[in-house]
Amino acid sequence: MEQTYIEDVARHEGEEVTLRGWLYNKRSSGKLHFLQVRDGTGTIQCVVFKKEVDPEVFERASHLTQESSIEVRGTVRADERSPLGFELGVTAIELVGESTDYPISPKDHGVAFLLDNRHLWVRSSRQHAIMRIRSEVSHACRRYFDERGFVLFDSPILTPNACEGTTTLFETPYFDETAYLTQSGQLYLEAGALAFGKAYCFGPTFRAEKSKTRRHLMEFWMIEPEVAYMDLEADMDMAEDFVEYVVQRVVANRSAELAILERDVARLQKVKKPFPRIAYDEAIEMLHDKGFEIEWGADFGAEEETAISDAFDRPVLVHRYPAACKAFYMKNDPEDARLALCVDMLAPEGYGEIIGGGQREDDWQTLRDKIRHHGLPEEPFAWYLDLRRYGSVPHAGFGMGIERVVAWICGLHHVRETIPFPRMLDRLRP
Amino acid sequence: MEQTYIEDVARHEGEEVTLRGWLYNKRSSGKLHFLQVRDGTGTIQCVVFKKEVDPEVFERASHLTQESSIEVRGTVRADERSPLGFELGVTAIELVGESTDYPISPKDHGVAFLLDNRHLWVRSSRQHAIMRIRSEVSHACRRYFDERGFVLFDSPILTPNACEGTTTLFETPYFDETAYLTQSGQLYLEAGALAFGKAYCFGPTFRAEKSKTRRHLMEFWMIEPEVAYMDLEADMDMAEDFVEYVVQRVVANRSAELAILERDVARLQKVKKPFPRIAYDEAIEMLHDKGFEIEWGADFGAEEETAISDAFDRPVLVHRYPAACKAFYMKNDPEDARLALCVDMLAPEGYGEIIGGGQREDDWQTLRDKIRHHGLPEEPFAWYLDLRRYGSVPHAGFGMGIERVVAWICGLHHVRETIPFPRMLDRLRP
Repeated sequence: MEQTYIEDVARHEGEEVTLRGWLYNKRSSGKLHFLQVRDGTGTIQCVVFKKEVDPEVFERASHLTQESSIEVRGTVRADERSPLGFELGVTAIELVGESTDYPISPKDHGVAFLLDNRHLWVRSSRQHAIMRIRSEVSHACRRYFDERGFVLFDSPILTPNACEGTTTLFETPYFDETAYLTQSGQLYLEAGALAFGKAYCFGPTFRAEKSKTRRHLMEFWMIEPEVAYMDLEADMDMAEDFVEYVVQRVVANRSAELAILERDVARLQKVKKPFPRIAYDEAIEMLHDKGFEIEWGADFGAEEETAISDAFDRPVLVHRYPAACKAFYMKNDPEDARLALCVDMLAPEGYGEIIGGGQREDDWQTLRDKIRHHGLPEEPFAWYLDLRRYGSVPHAGFGMGIERVVAWICGLHHVRETIPFPRMLDRLRP
Repeated sequence: MEQTYIEDVARHEGEEVTLRGWLYNKRSSGKLHFLQVRDGTGTIQCVVFKKEVDPEVFERASHLTQESSIEVRGTVRADERSPLGFELGVTAIELVGESTDYPISPKDHGVAFLLDNRHLWVRSSRQHAIMRIRSEVSHACRRYFDERGFVLFDSPILTPNACEGTTTLFETPYFDETAYLTQSGQLYLEAGALAFGKAYCFGPTFRAEKSKTRRHLMEFWMIEPEVAYMDLEADMDMAEDFVEYVVQRVVANRSAELAILERDVARLQKVKKPFPRIAYDEAIEMLHDKGFEIEWGADFGAEEETAISDAFDRPVLVHRYPAACKAFYMKNDPEDARLALCVDMLAPEGYGEIIGGGQREDDWQTLRDKIRHHGLPEEPFAWYLDLRRYGSVPHAGFGMGIERVVAWICGLHHVRETIPFPRMLDRLRP
């Protein structure tokens, strides 16, 4: 018999259909069972009336355990009380696979236990909501650049050189060489931007940071656009337009999931252009006013970022940091050589940096000197220098890690729930 | 002055616009220069008439070298002879960045030289065509599953266990443990299918195979769908429907690029359902008829795959291989326990296996015995076995490596040109 998905039951009102799924929850009395059945596309209440079904069907329903897989046949009926708008009047039930002592019960469990059982935890309604929002964020990111003529230009994961410094790299033997797992697709993407004008990549990136904070994962997905003939100002315009687009698409398409997560949607609806823009110098002043003893020249930590973003009801763009605390490929500000033409976007509500980007150094000589100054080997960057040797142009871009964005949109305390199988300092399993 | 992209010039006929790009090619006489200018979105002929521009503009044009970056101002004019339909009557030119002795000239170069200069080679028109088709294939893959209610469920790259055997793994120290780079997202995706009914992942995968063939890369992108309550027959239906969709979208949307590659599009237009389906047993008979001395039980190599696919004008599905030559997670055929409920799709024209998939073993006891029988450690697969302990269901899926598909659609001899920066046995650079 053909399977009907729960997301499609509205099209079958009054018809008898076959659902295939799992028992999510059950309430029973002597006369009837209310089975909450999920099939991944939705959850529906299935009502088993003792007087309407064969005795063995009623008996079978009474023994069903949480997460048993079942095939349920019945008639789709409108039901105003249901969030779905429909329930199923059951006529038959078949047990497909038993489930004995399912480890995740409705009671509270510790996070370590839930992460150990991540392969099962992803079946719960909160995790469903988060994963569907992650899926929506990924789609929105791609759609934004696809609709604007960007070419997808997948950067390699295995690289012979480090991008953001050499201390936080995962490495693997690569036949007779050593390869490093990419920390960012940017350097390769610059070749794509100079070939295609507008290019983006979107893939997993890796940082072997010995940090155990609520904002860090060892493996996370990053979307990175790069545009030829773009300067810092246009880059900031693109970043705010992009973030507004992504957030508002989730608000528009995933309201049911945001409701499950009890997210204050009004805060997300405020994420509209223009976003405030402040220079690093202004940010330092703000921090001094708030009592921070940070010196000019230092990068911001989580506490400073939160203090800055707390002053605003939408993301804030902080631009022109001291060049010394940023990566070698940043272009110096022609107005003040101590500064880099870079930008970080800090999310509101303490979610920290979600975007880092800026204009790239496009002068061959200056870039070569920076590579030397940063103590990096020159040979692995020879191809990167070539991009400044043959028709160099001003260009800019940014990277956005999607897990922090998902955590922010969902209102989660920790990024560990934003990815199917999080990789952390103490967690490589399951 | 605002930049106009070449892809948009049709909207500016008769207007003066500013293009920003690179000099792709040049022809000159004493009275005029024909500059082929590319900006990544297209190429346009820019005509510089000596008597129409300032002498220094004409002089500047005469010294422009290949891949110099330039800003060109001029009037958009219809031109029937141009593939674009328009040319630019130049009024001004500014040099942005010089390009001296650009290494890739229009003359023939060896492949090793071109791969060494891959960061520049991607600027050439053939490589543009291939990358745009790759981009289209990626979009089509995602769109197919997005439109059918699949949830994107990103599988992890860093894993504690091997999926397809332990001999061809890249490994990295992971703090106090060892992590392996994923060879397939499938095992994790099965958890996704049992949570969401229909799930897919699409990311880079890695095989440290010491093989140097035209079909192998060390790092390649794979799309993998997985569906709960699906059997082998429905899995084959999905695979053929999906491949038809992807190929026909490229044919519909990328005809200009296929023309640049001189692809015989008629062969691609034949890729329509139903695809032929043959059992492994029939394939063996075919091979014997063609003089191959292969024994029943052996897996097919490249030559056998080509011999089988040569009999058909579209992809062929070969199903039910001997279980002994397939992975441990395949479900045995209840009709003949020697066989696995698996399927490979072989592309026509000698492009080999593009899809591998099948129905997964869903019985806990049988799967545990298979893990032991394959000599795999049990502990890292405990979570995978759990999927058969708590509400197991029949389920199936497949993986498609996109580089082979792009090579096939483009009609390329070797997969190395199908990805921005190929990683091969002897190549980790640039």
